[in-house]
Amino acid sequence: MNAAVLTISDTAHRGEREDISGPTVAARLRELGWTITLTEILPDDAPAITARVRSLSSDLDIHAVFTTGGTGIAPRDVTPEAVRPVLSKEIPGLAELMRLEGRKKTPRAVLSRSIAGLAGSTLVLTLPGSPTGAIESLDAVAALLPHIIDLAAGRTAHPANG
Amino acid sequence: MNAAVLTISDTAHRGEREDISGPTVAARLRELGWTITLTEILPDDAPAITARVRSLSSDLDIHAVFTTGGTGIAPRDVTPEAVRPVLSKEIPGLAELMRLEGRKKTPRAVLSRSIAGLAGSTLVLTLPGSPTGAIESLDAVAALLPHIIDLAAGRTAHPANG
Amino acid sequence: MNAAVLTISDTAHRGEREDISGPTVAARLRELGWTITLTEILPDDAPAITARVRSLSSDLDIHAVFTTGGTGIAPRDVTPEAVRPVLSKEIPGLAELMRLEGRKKTPRAVLSRSIAGLAGSTLVLTLPGSPTGAIESLDAVAALLPHIIDLAAGRTAHPANG
Repeated sequence: MNAAVLTISDTAHRGEREDISGPTVAARLRELGWTITLTEILPDDAPAITARVRSLSSDLDIHAVFTTGGTGIAPRDVTPEAVRPVLSKEIPGLAELMRLEGRKKTPRAVLSRSIAGLAGSTLVLTLPGSPTGAIESLDAVAALLPHIIDLAAGRTAHPANG
Repeated sequence: MNAAVLTISDTAHRGEREDISGPTVAARLRELGWTITLTEILPDDAPAITARVRSLSSDLDIHAVFTTGGTGIAPRDVTPEAVRPVLSKEIPGLAELMRLEGRKKTPRAVLSRSIAGLAGSTLVLTLPGSPTGAIESLDAVAALLPHIIDLAAGRTAHPANG
Repeated sequence: MNAAVLTISDTAHRGEREDISGPTVAARLRELGWTITLTEILPDDAPAITARVRSLSSDLDIHAVFTTGGTGIAPRDVTPEAVRPVLSKEIPGLAELMRLEGRKKTPRAVLSRSIAGLAGSTLVLTLPGSPTGAIESLDAVAALLPHIIDLAAGRTAHPANG
């Protein structure tokens, strides 16, 4: 399975700060068996995020797009609003589960506005911007992701009466 | 209380497969005290689903519309998107509860995109397509449904300062 | 931190019933360290609620707007639909947490359609209309609120790679 990892951060995009989260997420995905075919750093700019996620999700060689950053409530955090219009099917249970699992570590996980879903047959998962938060959120749902990719591609048998 | 049960499945609609989920949901509802006044099989076609749920929810003799099927993430699963525009009040807690309870049985319950709410004074509940998933989701919220029907009809005393 | 408390209730607005919830929420907020700079009673009228919340959230001296009432499923309950268009960032985890904590007290907490989020840098939290439900929901998230106000104002350091 091939994935793109997008770091969303004004300061990392301007080169004022090293991007830690993107490489951390990519490394964890490789451990989980994913092939990372693209990494990029985008600013916290909604139209740019929307356009890039839409473009990547139309690439049939990319099965999933993971973003890290911009899911919080600071003024520049716009990732959920930027990604939602690209999703053809939002999967609210993934976001609920990331928050539920996150709360076992920190009460502030409640504030993550991460969203997840399908853009066509491409999985899109928005992770928090802190390396720790990103990995905790990813691990909360990682075991489900291959099944999602299969279902989205129409490869897995539909459940009876689905 | 009168209910309609809609099976949403391309293959059952074409007669290629027997509809198990619809009769299973109807039988469970009868055990719970509901009268089933209508059962139908619809294809996984969003405009058809939207139109039928809207029409049924405007029938004052039907207090609730239950659907089974199309809540997953396969390409033809469009029930949440088809039903949402019909709802005047979405009740997110019901969907959250169905997923929470479902996770006690299978991690994949997270992927159910079931929604629930009111279309005017009619309860609309979208259940998964597998017979097991449909019954587990229904049972997770069944005890709350009579109270919802009463409140939606304006029959139950409003809580203080409601 | 300064807060406005809006009671949303047709009967309290018409003076047919004493407003218990508004003063109860205000008293609890004062115990939590908030200064209540305004209290009002509004009818269950969506355009009036939308306009008032929008107006208050543009007042830079008000850091949070708390409403009580209209979050249920009775025909006149329209607070979530009225408040949602005012929010620039919905924070779904707060509503999820209020329902999760509420379920420990009563199964009917599932039916609360409370929403929360930011309108610009102003926190907006919609609480149930019963005094007990309002306080339970408020207490479920109270400890997080100062942090939200800080983040929304851009005052707290952004997490690494946020």
